[in-house]
Parts: sequence; structure tokens; C-alpha cells
Amino acid sequence: MNIREEARRMKLDAPKLAATTLEERNAALREIAKGLEEKKHEIFAANEEDVREATENGVAPAVIKRLKYTEEKLRDGLAGINQLISLPDPLGKVQMKRELDEGLVLTRISCPIGVIGVIFEARPDALVQISCLCLKSGNCAILKGGKETARTNRMLFRIIRDSAIKAGMPEGCLKQAELHNEIDELLMCDKDVDLLIPRGSNAFVQYIMNHTKIPVMGHADGVCHIYVDKDADFEKAMRILPDAKMQYTAACNSVETVLIDRAVAGEFLPKLADMCQEKGIRLRGTEEAMRLLSQHAQNENTAGQQTAGDTVATADERTDGVGTESTAGGAFEVMDLEEFHKEYLDLVMSVRVVDGVVEAVDHINRFGSHHTDSIITENEETAAYFFQMVDSAGVYQNCSTRFADGFRYGFGAEVGISTSKLHARGPVGLEGLVTYKYLLQGHGQIVGDYASGKAQFHFRELC
Amino acid sequence: MNIREEARRMKLDAPKLAATTLEERNAALREIAKGLEEKKHEIFAANEEDVREATENGVAPAVIKRLKYTEEKLRDGLAGINQLISLPDPLGKVQMKRELDEGLVLTRISCPIGVIGVIFEARPDALVQISCLCLKSGNCAILKGGKETARTNRMLFRIIRDSAIKAGMPEGCLKQAELHNEIDELLMCDKDVDLLIPRGSNAFVQYIMNHTKIPVMGHADGVCHIYVDKDADFEKAMRILPDAKMQYTAACNSVETVLIDRAVAGEFLPKLADMCQEKGIRLRGTEEAMRLLSQHAQNENTAGQQTAGDTVATADERTDGVGTESTAGGAFEVMDLEEFHKEYLDLVMSVRVVDGVVEAVDHINRFGSHHTDSIITENEETAAYFFQMVDSAGVYQNCSTRFADGFRYGFGAEVGISTSKLHARGPVGLEGLVTYKYLLQGHGQIVGDYASGKAQFHFRELC
Repeated sequence: MNIREEARRMKLDAPKLAATTLEERNAALREIAKGLEEKKHEIFAANEEDVREATENGVAPAVIKRLKYTEEKLRDGLAGINQLISLPDPLGKVQMKRELDEGLVLTRISCPIGVIGVIFEARPDALVQISCLCLKSGNCAILKGGKETARTNRMLFRIIRDSAIKAGMPEGCLKQAELHNEIDELLMCDKDVDLLIPRGSNAFVQYIMNHTKIPVMGHADGVCHIYVDKDADFEKAMRILPDAKMQYTAACNSVETVLIDRAVAGEFLPKLADMCQEKGIRLRGTEEAMRLLSQHAQNENTAGQQTAGDTVATADERTDGVGTESTAGGAFEVMDLEEFHKEYLDLVMSVRVVDGVVEAVDHINRFGSHHTDSIITENEETAAYFFQMVDSAGVYQNCSTRFADGFRYGFGAEVGISTSKLHARGPVGLEGLVTYKYLLQGHGQIVGDYASGKAQFHFRELC
Repeated sequence: MNIREEARRMKLDAPKLAATTLEERNAALREIAKGLEEKKHEIFAANEEDVREATENGVAPAVIKRLKYTEEKLRDGLAGINQLISLPDPLGKVQMKRELDEGLVLTRISCPIGVIGVIFEARPDALVQISCLCLKSGNCAILKGGKETARTNRMLFRIIRDSAIKAGMPEGCLKQAELHNEIDELLMCDKDVDLLIPRGSNAFVQYIMNHTKIPVMGHADGVCHIYVDKDADFEKAMRILPDAKMQYTAACNSVETVLIDRAVAGEFLPKLADMCQEKGIRLRGTEEAMRLLSQHAQNENTAGQQTAGDTVATADERTDGVGTESTAGGAFEVMDLEEFHKEYLDLVMSVRVVDGVVEAVDHINRFGSHHTDSIITENEETAAYFFQMVDSAGVYQNCSTRFADGFRYGFGAEVGISTSKLHARGPVGLEGLVTYKYLLQGHGQIVGDYASGKAQFHFRELC
């Protein structure tokens, strides 16, 4: 059966899955946890083959680490399922109950979205997490994982689906897509698939967004900022910056740009440059930032107090405003303003000197990707302005941008992070996988009577 | 200034509008109401010219009625503005407040979507409603109305924008697009426009959806159903059906298809046919429906009790399953199953006999547009099944589908009705024009400490 036919079948099964009780869905999750535990050796064996092949193909060690499905990852996965079981039912919540007129009652109730397609990177734990989130929220899911973990995915998927169906979930609750061309087939299913959640590279997510009529939830890029305000506690800044850049450099919520208040730039920039040199982070930035760094280095030189680790040079060889300099803290590359749009996902950081919080906010709203941005300040008034004006899914004060994550927000798990402003924004957990419908119960009421004035609405909240 | 540049400017003004207080936004609404009242004669004069031109161009009287901006429509518009002023602030609502760890507090707060483009039909009252809804919800709006009311729109827009700016709203809060080619320009502004709300014909909305990367909220078609169950109160059904079809035939929430439980079809169909003949509604349907109607007519004949208004004939001239018959209640056209997808927006109704509520639901989920569907039944169990299983924005019992409307739901006003399952579903009022952001306040926390086990999350709800 091809993806289109399968999607049509799932669409018809979707209301059946939506009608299951919380107990039934939790029983399915328990069955899945049991199945994964019982068949773990088969999973590990399949995964070893995937890892062996990837290694033979010269896949980078950092990526191999993500492909590996270990006892520890299984344990985390089972803990995640148990946490999911303990969460309240996202379905059937009465969000509003209003009497429109006597005997005419409007109720808004939460329900699943329907059929969701999730296309994710080569990470076996992602398959477990996503399928369980979809089941708990009563959504049918079509899952397509990265090809490097094909064997592991197939094994995990079979165990998860068999367990779910054994526990009474409808046949069409889960479907695995395995072939790459099935992605394009999936993109055509706008009549039957209600939502697509692509995870992966900027280019991949863009491709999905540009080639389907199905609504897409996710983010293409994560250009996150940290703004160091004049009232910043530098110690906090120097703790937060390396974490935000290096705790997981390739993550969407890692920092790409540091904005520094002009009032403290001369003092802070050299510290930043030193830290970057020490940590192996390449620094790029505006001419002004470079000038300040050079000045500082000269001053240090003049005072004869050059500190260890500084390689100092002045900007005399540079032409046309762009070039690489060796300043305090090591190499420093001057960049164009438009390059601030760039997501490095690497040990590179852009730096710009700004005229206080107002210019910092303008820069973030203009060059950022509306993902997650943080201010370092002890001034609550400045922080309040930043919170109000920054147009991003996550706006932080005095903490690392890396906190933008479903687990860390206490959602149990996430299917992804959304930079869209519609529906779910930020990390998307169970709540982002539901919609609602309006139920209206009457006794023969017609609109004609209200239009003619024979009857009148008198709204009364019932809950 | 072209639309693109204007949109970019509005994007920068959007956080300023978002930061206005409820009092400031309400003051702007009061100023607008005052302006409209004071300049009403200029508005009426402009409208008279529009109406004269439309009449000269041979525009249909029903459409002319919508173009006209009368004292009564102004009064309704002012009442709407006053109702909007009385509604609570949709912005700045704390939707969640959670301590992730000591001194690390996550808050989810409602905020405007940003810049919204609304393209609407030639109805001057729509311009007033939409611009005021956007202002109250703190959204910048680009408005493009139907060309038949160009002069009225220009006058209304000028008064509304001038009043808003006089009351302190930022310059970029409202922008009018007047030329048709500006729509295509608007569709390209995916970097600066956060949401498009198109209103109008199916073809127009489809065009918008297919030609932009901007998220679109709305509905292309409204194929609404009424299912007459075996436990239906026929009297209610006969009250509701003409209202749902005729109270505003061209509306998206008017009924297109009647599904009848086989158990009562023989009894109900003739009544339906009589009503349709009386009201001038053309009936189309499946062969079975036609057979039942013919049988009824024959029985009536045999018993010599033909009632007035019935034109009776048997199905002997028909070939290949499609044709027109004259049966009880007048002309009856046999149709193919696939035609049940059709939205008539006219005095035509499709009818199908189904095997109870289960088949009715399957039909609705397959052929409907997930807009609004109603069951007529006195059986609460059957109604509960219908509520649970029908996958539509509005699911009703014993009332007209025409109730699907922001005013009737008590939202004060609506910008449109959404059949999307993401973000807002059904009639979209103030609540559908806001999103949220996550604010995280810390004291230097980094993710590395939680990853290493040095620190642990302990989630605690603060509200």
C-alpha cells in the first residue's frame, strides 16, 4: 500500500483513535514500554548493524554517537514513556462552556489534530518519543526517520505498532515510511494529513515548507542572540555564553550572535575574546567591535601588561572593511551586517556593539529567527523592555538559550520547536498536538428567529 | 511606498503596538467610533457613489445590498466597537507560570501575532470590524477590501487610521491596499507578514493559499451537513432545514447536504421534498433517495390520496443511473457520489440515505469540508457519538448550521471562520488573533549543570 492510500485509511481511523479513553491510550503506552524492554536485544543488534555500516561509510563520530541506541538511551526512553503516562489527558478538556440562549449551549472541547506526518533525523530515541507523544494525544502518525538508522527504526517501529494494536489502538494509528521518495508522496497528501513536523537541517525544513499545502510546524533556522547589557553581571555572562554556544553547538537553540551594549563593550569584549580563544570559538563581528578589541590590546601593550593568551595586532593591513585580524583573544574576522542572519551551528560567534537595549531588540527582531534570545542584565526595567519587545518564541533573562526544550520546560517530551506564531510556538509537547471543536446543543433553534428579533442571545458562562 | 516596504515598516512598528496598554487601545477605539459618527455624511456620500457605479455596472441587487453603508450598518458597527471596548484584554494573559528550578521561572504570556493581512469582500462594515479587531488585539493590519466599495473603503480607512494615530497608536498600525496587484505583492511578504486572512469565494481563497508562504487562516469551502437520525424530532428538522439553507443561502455555514437515516427515510423524504418544492429548493440525491420518493408517490396514488403540491411520476425514462425525475415534491435529480463534495451556495440541496449515524459520520468526514455539521436527534447517545466522531470545527445537535458565527458565539466580532485545525478553528475572534511567548527568568543558570547532574529540575506550578 502506498503512502497516499495509507494516509486515506489513517484519516478514517483518526476519529476512532480520537475516541479512545485515556486509560486505553495509557495501556498502549505501557504495552509499548514492555515490548521495548522485552525485545531490547533485537533492537540493539539491529542498531549495531546500522552503526557498523555508518562507520564503514565514514560517518563522523559525533553523528555516530547520535545513531547509537544504548541501554542508557532505552532507559531514558522508558522513563519518558512513564512520564507521558503520568501526564493528564490532553483530550476532552472543556475549554469554554457558554449558554447562548436558553437551551442553546456552546462547548469548546480539545481534540486531536488527526493525522500527523513527522520526518526526523537519524536518532532512534526520536522515533520512540514522537510515536508515544502522538498516541498519548490521540493522533495518527506517519513516521519517517533518517536512513542511517533504518534497521533500528524498523525494529523499534514494529515493536511500537504491534504493542499499540495489541492494546486495542486502531490499525491505522501508526505507519512507517522508509523510502526517501515516500517523503514527496507524503507532501502530496494534503487532503488526509493535517500537519507535518519536519526536523533536520535548515535546507531540508525549507524544502518541506516549499513543497506542500499541508500546514508545517517547525523551524528552519535558529539564530539565537545573547545581549550583554550595560547592567550585566559579567560573571553570569561568562558562565552563560560558553554554555549557550558549546553545550550542544549544533542545536537550534545554541547562540550565534552576541550583542554588547556600547557602554560596557570596551570592558567586556576583551573578556569575551579571551574566553573564545580559550574555548576555540572563532569570533567575527563589526568593525567597531574589532576596533575596540585592538584598542584594548594596544592599551595593554602600552602598559606593558599583556596577559598570557593574547595575540595582539593592530588593524593596518585591512582593506575595504572586511578582513581577518589577530587581536586580543585571537583571530577576529570583520563581517557585513547582512551576515548576522547566519546560523553557524559551529564554534563561530558573531559580535556586534549596540546602542543599548533598544538597538539590541531592533537587531534581534531584524536578524534573528524568532527562536530564543536572552538578555544579561541586573536591571529589571531593561529586562521588562526586552521581554515586551523581542518577538521570539523564547525571551530569556540571565540564562542560557539552551533551555529552550520540551523536557526542560516540563512538557515531558517534545516533537520539535516551532518558530511559527500560529498554533504552537516554542517547544511543542502534548498541548501543541491538539486542537478543539465547538459543540452546540439546541432544541430546534434557528438563526432566522435571532435575525428577526423574535429571539435574543443572552450569553452566560457556564464554566 | 509599496506594500513590501510598508510591510517591513509595519513589522518594526508591531512590537510598539504590542506594547500599548489596554487603555490606550480602547481609547483608540473610542476615537474611531467618534470619528465615524462625526464624518458619517462623508462616508454615506462616498458610498452612494460606489452604489451608483455598481448599479450602472449591472451588479445584482443582492450584492448591492451588501455594498450599501446605511445609518443602520453604521449603528451596528458602532455597537460592535463598544462591545469590543468592553471585552477584556487578550494580551498579557499569563497562561502558565512554572518554576523549573530555584530561581528559574518560566512564564507563558499571550501577545499579538504581529502583522496581519486581511483580504475581504466588498462590504464596508467588514473593514470597520476587522480593523478594530486587529487594533484591540494589538496587531498591525494591512487591509484590502473589494473594489466595488473603493470610495467607501478609502473614506472609512482614513477616518479609522487617523483616529487611531491621533489616539497614540504607532504610524504603522494600519495600512490600506487598494490596487488588485497589491494582493500579489502582499503574498510575497512572508518575512514581514505573519498571517493572511482571505475572505471570499472558494477559488479566491484557494488562490491565496496556493500562492504564498505566509500562513493562511480561513476556509475555502463550507460543505455543511444536516443528518436526520431515526430518533429525530421531524418538527425540529423541518424548522431547522429551511433556516440552514435559506436564512443566508450564499453563506459558508448554510447547509448543502441532508443525510437521512434509512429507518425513517421513507417517512421523512416526502416531507423534505414537499418543503423543498414549497420553498423553491432544487433537490438532488442518490438513486435510493429517488426510489423512496417515487414509491411514496405511487403509494399515495394507489390510495387515491395524492396531496396538493405533489407532482408524481415513476422512474422509467432514466438511463445509466443519472437523470432528472419528477417525484413527490417536484423535480429530483440523481447525482453521483463524488458530487457530494460540492458547495452550492444556492437553492439546491443534496440528499442521501445512510445506514444510521455511523455511515452519516463517515459521509461527513469524507465529503464535508470540516466546517459545521448538525445532527437532528432526540437520542443523546447517538448525539454523543456524532459529537465525538465528526471531524469539524462545529458539531451541532438540533440547531441550524447558520449559528457558526463569531457574533452568535459571543466573541463580539469575527475576522473569519477557520476550517484549519491549527491555531484557531471555527469563528475567529480576538482570541484567534493572539499567540504567546515563553519568558524565562534566571540568575545565571546554564544547561551544562543540568546535563551533568550537578543541578536538577523540579517543576512547580506557580499559577
